[in-house]
Amino acid sequence: MTEVTMRFAGRMAGLRTSEIREILKLTQRPEVISFAGGLPAAELFPAHEMAEVSAEVLNSAGASALQYSTTEGDPELRRAIAERMRLQLGVPVAMEQVLITSGSQQGLDLSGRLFLDDGDVVLCESPTYLGAINAFKAYRPHFVEVDTDDDGMVLVDLERKLAEHPRARMVYVIPDFQNPTGRSWSQERRQGFVDLMARHDIPVVEDNPYSELCFEGESGRPIKALDRRGQVVYLGTFSKIFCPGLRIGWLVAARPLYERYVMVKQGVDLHTSTLGQRQIAAYIAHFGLEANIERIRAVYRRRRDAMLAAMDVEMPEGVRWTKPRGGLFLWVEVPDCLDARELLAASLEEDVAFVPGGSFFPNGGHHNTMRLNFSAMPEARIVEGVRRLARVIRRALAAAADREPAALVETPA
Amino acid sequence: MTEVTMRFAGRMAGLRTSEIREILKLTQRPEVISFAGGLPAAELFPAHEMAEVSAEVLNSAGASALQYSTTEGDPELRRAIAERMRLQLGVPVAMEQVLITSGSQQGLDLSGRLFLDDGDVVLCESPTYLGAINAFKAYRPHFVEVDTDDDGMVLVDLERKLAEHPRARMVYVIPDFQNPTGRSWSQERRQGFVDLMARHDIPVVEDNPYSELCFEGESGRPIKALDRRGQVVYLGTFSKIFCPGLRIGWLVAARPLYERYVMVKQGVDLHTSTLGQRQIAAYIAHFGLEANIERIRAVYRRRRDAMLAAMDVEMPEGVRWTKPRGGLFLWVEVPDCLDARELLAASLEEDVAFVPGGSFFPNGGHHNTMRLNFSAMPEARIVEGVRRLARVIRRALAAAADREPAALVETPA
Repeated sequence: MTEVTMRFAGRMAGLRTSEIREILKLTQRPEVISFAGGLPAAELFPAHEMAEVSAEVLNSAGASALQYSTTEGDPELRRAIAERMRLQLGVPVAMEQVLITSGSQQGLDLSGRLFLDDGDVVLCESPTYLGAINAFKAYRPHFVEVDTDDDGMVLVDLERKLAEHPRARMVYVIPDFQNPTGRSWSQERRQGFVDLMARHDIPVVEDNPYSELCFEGESGRPIKALDRRGQVVYLGTFSKIFCPGLRIGWLVAARPLYERYVMVKQGVDLHTSTLGQRQIAAYIAHFGLEANIERIRAVYRRRRDAMLAAMDVEMPEGVRWTKPRGGLFLWVEVPDCLDARELLAASLEEDVAFVPGGSFFPNGGHHNTMRLNFSAMPEARIVEGVRRLARVIRRALAAAADREPAALVETPA
Repeated sequence: MTEVTMRFAGRMAGLRTSEIREILKLTQRPEVISFAGGLPAAELFPAHEMAEVSAEVLNSAGASALQYSTTEGDPELRRAIAERMRLQLGVPVAMEQVLITSGSQQGLDLSGRLFLDDGDVVLCESPTYLGAINAFKAYRPHFVEVDTDDDGMVLVDLERKLAEHPRARMVYVIPDFQNPTGRSWSQERRQGFVDLMARHDIPVVEDNPYSELCFEGESGRPIKALDRRGQVVYLGTFSKIFCPGLRIGWLVAARPLYERYVMVKQGVDLHTSTLGQRQIAAYIAHFGLEANIERIRAVYRRRRDAMLAAMDVEMPEGVRWTKPRGGLFLWVEVPDCLDARELLAASLEEDVAFVPGGSFFPNGGHHNTMRLNFSAMPEARIVEGVRRLARVIRRALAAAADREPAALVETPA
């Protein structure tokens, strides 16, 4: 009997497996110093406290915690999220606007599903989050990358591209400690962005996993806080401020848009884990998240400091990087004569991994960039990893100089 | 400032909220006797044992249980599923073919995403599962309903419709204790189906939540067990044999199809809850599922018996229903002069709910059918509910006879 020859839907044509996930598979050997993932520090997860509240939830209300529940989500959790958003982020949110999602990745997928037809245009920061590119790609849009600088999206470029692309259907942004660059938008830029978007009937999807991981100064207020039109859909998650393994995030949308999201989620997975929602709600009720977030901030700040200090010491001239005030990532640009994919191959031989930056540009290019994660490792490993990576870069620069000496800046031996 | 006017993707046009979920909202008053849901009996959930294993998982390996994990799923859980499928269902499955999904609803959505373009044809049983209709509808296919009888899909009708529809891209079936009819396919029909499908390069999606809830005789072997071509994608779930609140299901697919599912799931939600998977894997390792399934079977059998006995006593002539050997549902046909939606409105006044059967036919019609669930309530409530429902039907028949006496069979007072 012959094997079946299957025909796939057209949307499958452009789909490739996430480069990051493939790299991560290569880096699971314990000896690898991996700057590749976006993993939170697992040693900070409050596992024993979770054991405590899990037992309480299951012993006191196990029947309902293990039963089907509503698509909208657990009322207690939705209320706690709305309250935290008001108190911690200054966003006026009612629990009726909060929809629990299976991670904020699901919020991205649902947004693509709601807004994107084949060939529609998504405007996004350049570079932008790889997981969002993958989520939206399933709906076969064109990505139009908007220039960014240290203050956020460049508004004249956004305005020009909105005018050039009448099929623009969504603007996707990560204003706080962006993945992959670690940069945050200035408050002026946020207000300018909202004012500009208010002249267009195009939804904004604001992805905000990182703003509470602020190491110094103040994080900006979410764009959602400035939204008077119900134009902004806000995506939140417990992955970075608590733990990611439960896959619980949320989205905030105005009605009647909210109902559309609920309807679409029904068809996709009915609802998010009842038990998982109850566990987090119980954790928040007993312990709050604030002490935990403070602990995460302190540890990540030290790791960022270690990485920045090591970069200063180790990196050859011509290499530039961001100095993020929060989040999980540093963004690195090496001289144009180098290719980050080739550097990765060489780094893996030295047991160091990172993600080539080109993956974060939906339309390709930018072969000389890389993303480094600093949240998942103790300082000593970070320093050693940066040292090895710098060695790989210096070696590649020397080799490039041998091939094409004129094109290069002088590099220290 | 004016409210934003949003434009939605074309796929949103045909989407409506699930009728069942809307009805369920009406029936949450505790006095309502609801045959409407498909809820497992929550009093059978092993909540205390789950508390025990949750504490163990979190205290012994909390860091990894709360961390991101692979899209494919927890290896221990995948191994346990493959083993159960071999031992309990006679399906030869290796763990490498098992992908953990966020409920089997996600397996339906991913299948639609993989196989269906706008206007493609899905062949399904008539009637079929409402959740599958909703999942597939997002991909805007045409549904072609294939006739069914007490032995399953009518193969001559399937053959004819495959020939008539060159854009047929998927056949969706529920061979065991089907939702909504409770009927199971005969072994001959299963073999004939697989033989017929082997002459076509069209994937079969086999949805099997219920086969282990068999009250008498033997349940059939899944169609997947007969599949020699890698043509059948099998969807399984813990919702009915364990508990649904964790939203954990699985799918079994041959390679390279398996990799496509993994790739698509990455974009949709990265992976299913690590903690939820570990909790179920630990439960299976400690307690196994078999004792629990035996308990569920015994309780549901008594409830089915109570419902069938009450139907025999109460229902007027002209009403017919299935006698399922397993599962959660009875399928009822009332005389053609009645409309189940009108009956529902009248029943709700008597505090009884059910789902009008028309919802289970993707192309509409069949206004005189209804689905009754018997798993979620003690026998006394079932008997009382059937009594009230029969009263509503008798009253409606009498009213119809007043309007149009000739069209009716004689009904007992």
